[in-house]
Amino acid sequence: MTERLKKALDYIEAHREEYIELLRELCRQPSLAGTGEGIPEMIELVQEKMRAYGIEPTLIPTDGNPVIYAELKGESPRVYGCYDHYDVQPVDPIDLWDSDPFAAEIRDGVIYARGVADNKDGLATRLCAIDAWLKTAGTLPCGVKLIFEGEEEIGSPNLEPFAEAHPELLECDGYVWEGGEKERGGPCEVTMGVKGLLYVHMKVKTAGRDAHSMYAAIAPNPAWRLVQALASMKDAEGNITIDGFYDGIIPPDETALGFLESDPFDPERTRRYLGVEALTGGKTKREILESLYFKPTCNICGLTSGYQGDGSKTVLPSEASVKIDFRLVPGQDPKRIFSLVREHLDRHGFTDVELIWDSGESAYRSDLNAPFSKAVVAALERLYDRPVALKVSSGGTSPMHTFCHKTGIPAGMFGASSAEANIHAPNEHLACDAFIEMIRINCAVMDELSRY
Amino acid sequence: MTERLKKALDYIEAHREEYIELLRELCRQPSLAGTGEGIPEMIELVQEKMRAYGIEPTLIPTDGNPVIYAELKGESPRVYGCYDHYDVQPVDPIDLWDSDPFAAEIRDGVIYARGVADNKDGLATRLCAIDAWLKTAGTLPCGVKLIFEGEEEIGSPNLEPFAEAHPELLECDGYVWEGGEKERGGPCEVTMGVKGLLYVHMKVKTAGRDAHSMYAAIAPNPAWRLVQALASMKDAEGNITIDGFYDGIIPPDETALGFLESDPFDPERTRRYLGVEALTGGKTKREILESLYFKPTCNICGLTSGYQGDGSKTVLPSEASVKIDFRLVPGQDPKRIFSLVREHLDRHGFTDVELIWDSGESAYRSDLNAPFSKAVVAALERLYDRPVALKVSSGGTSPMHTFCHKTGIPAGMFGASSAEANIHAPNEHLACDAFIEMIRINCAVMDELSRY
Repeated sequence: MTERLKKALDYIEAHREEYIELLRELCRQPSLAGTGEGIPEMIELVQEKMRAYGIEPTLIPTDGNPVIYAELKGESPRVYGCYDHYDVQPVDPIDLWDSDPFAAEIRDGVIYARGVADNKDGLATRLCAIDAWLKTAGTLPCGVKLIFEGEEEIGSPNLEPFAEAHPELLECDGYVWEGGEKERGGPCEVTMGVKGLLYVHMKVKTAGRDAHSMYAAIAPNPAWRLVQALASMKDAEGNITIDGFYDGIIPPDETALGFLESDPFDPERTRRYLGVEALTGGKTKREILESLYFKPTCNICGLTSGYQGDGSKTVLPSEASVKIDFRLVPGQDPKRIFSLVREHLDRHGFTDVELIWDSGESAYRSDLNAPFSKAVVAALERLYDRPVALKVSSGGTSPMHTFCHKTGIPAGMFGASSAEANIHAPNEHLACDAFIEMIRINCAVMDELSRY
Repeated sequence: MTERLKKALDYIEAHREEYIELLRELCRQPSLAGTGEGIPEMIELVQEKMRAYGIEPTLIPTDGNPVIYAELKGESPRVYGCYDHYDVQPVDPIDLWDSDPFAAEIRDGVIYARGVADNKDGLATRLCAIDAWLKTAGTLPCGVKLIFEGEEEIGSPNLEPFAEAHPELLECDGYVWEGGEKERGGPCEVTMGVKGLLYVHMKVKTAGRDAHSMYAAIAPNPAWRLVQALASMKDAEGNITIDGFYDGIIPPDETALGFLESDPFDPERTRRYLGVEALTGGKTKREILESLYFKPTCNICGLTSGYQGDGSKTVLPSEASVKIDFRLVPGQDPKRIFSLVREHLDRHGFTDVELIWDSGESAYRSDLNAPFSKAVVAALERLYDRPVALKVSSGGTSPMHTFCHKTGIPAGMFGASSAEANIHAPNEHLACDAFIEMIRINCAVMDELSRY
């Protein structure tokens, strides 16, 4: 470990409470891209915190929420790109939270808050790492670019236009990408790719109003139509039966497959975390990982029709709707998949089923041989003195392709959050120790990258 | 028309406002059997109103809400039985009401309230008719039995035990049954049967918690399981594919079928009322009526899973549920159908789908040649001086069989509500004129029955 890194890490340790308080402050401010709640206030707060650490933010407008951007020079010409988002998922079902999602309560050294692990933690660690360098070395080991967007949780609809309008802002040696996990005592993980996403709504409206259910004998039921349309999209084995859905998929190469055996994924632990009887998608760890990383999904996120309350109501609903997310893999274009779904519905006689585009992202896999990729692995191995666990892809989605697919810039997720952090679910949380760890990791990677 | 009937009818006309105010007062008191809201207060209110009209109520306990019972002697030994209920349907979706469902607001001579047409109107008309007789003749032309139950809208779970425990209270010449329609200017309608009902909930729980939707690649989705289970229960033509479901159905006899052509049902008007593009279940009026009266249904009343809010949330739900009502016909026992559904699910591999009994009723068809049946028709034809439109069955459900199937006592629904009264839906309503008409009809039937 270099002397300068040691100093930075010591500074972080000495300023634990300050950094944790910064994260809690960010978490206390709601910032829901879905409804817009708290977004303007969040933008102000992030800029205020950046300035306090000597980072001059630039607000770059988009057709939606603006990007908060900053650029800092360092000793080396290498540039460390940081992509994070300041928006969060909705909090429903709110009644399953043990504390206010925006109270950022600490219990037993763990912060509970919406966004604390996805991804206000990531955003905060970049600021803290820069602060630690500036306070100790007076300068940064390498250049840094910060790109904080505000619409990740609704599919980043304005990130692509931003990237196309400002290609020069995107230039760097590689991105640290939001997300990234490290179990306490486990190996440090690096995830070098993400799945894509297509989010759609399907709606059936058969009547002008709900009616007494005796009319079910002589009038159409939208819920039945929706059930039948959905049933036509998957077979009993879970295969997606939309014509052309699997066409053009780019399979993982041998290098990628080679990392599956050493992947830190633990099927039994994941099964317990999810609380399911058995994992699907494979029997062996390798098969399950192939499903998680390389196979697309068609998932029902929400299903709604008719009477939702307690007890019974004999009603013929007038509307039914479903929210579906498809997790896509390289080679699957969200717009093309959307067209295929529409064609499938039409071909099966479901022209009455309305299909509505919500959002889409393409998948991305990084070049594992790029300098940035190697520097990240080396920095982490040096910091922890043990081999890094490299994941070829996340099962989740992030708009990596937006910044990376034209330039081939690698991107990696590495941090210290937990796979059991309940992101997108009630009681999202992050250990204070893990957060401090993430700041340390950022410092270590910046130090290492500067020497490549 | 007899002199005594004329006096009673004149009295009703002179006391319009008093009777309308009574109905509104009953409607302003919520009485939701589903949640229990307002039930005790409603029981008090009904008894208070009965006493005010010289009727001494008896509260007969059941395992659920009590039955409010009363018995009055008349000049003739014939006894007019009245079955109504003091509970109402839930009010959801509340935001589609134009006024508070429990305000009983009058707009353009129409009362808007939950329960005003199903069936606090019926209950009130019995009290008002008795009052009109007592105030004018000083006595009733025939005996009267009032049976007001409090759980009709949740499937009358305690009415059968009540009937079995008190067979003597049920003895009468025939029942006027809640419901019954008469369009303004149209013929008076008599409905002499009802469909049965089986209401069930189906639930799938796959996990202990909702999770990030990336896990859809390797974990079960309860909404997909439910969709597939449901899809197995109906074919593309809408036929119910549960083995044995149609077995044992007692088809209508020729007498019943003979009434279909003269049935006042107007397909185009019903289509417009429902706001659907086309009615299903048949092309001709006769075919559509055969579906409505004689064919069972399997109707999705409500469908729930995962994220229900605005916008998108990428979540793998842990639970999914559906509410289903089957409208049954004579020969279909609700308990047997329930077993068949369970067997069907098991046989198709859906042992993970929990099936929960909510409520059940058998169907009933009256003897059209009984004295009561004939007296009702004669009274109405005399009152309106035109032929009565006789409906063999309702498309809806009422526990007629509970009182009638052992004794063969006929039961008929006749009143002056509208088929477009939005019962079980937002903006349930009843014209003040129709309500007054219903009181007149009750008086006329009592007068006629006393001479049979």
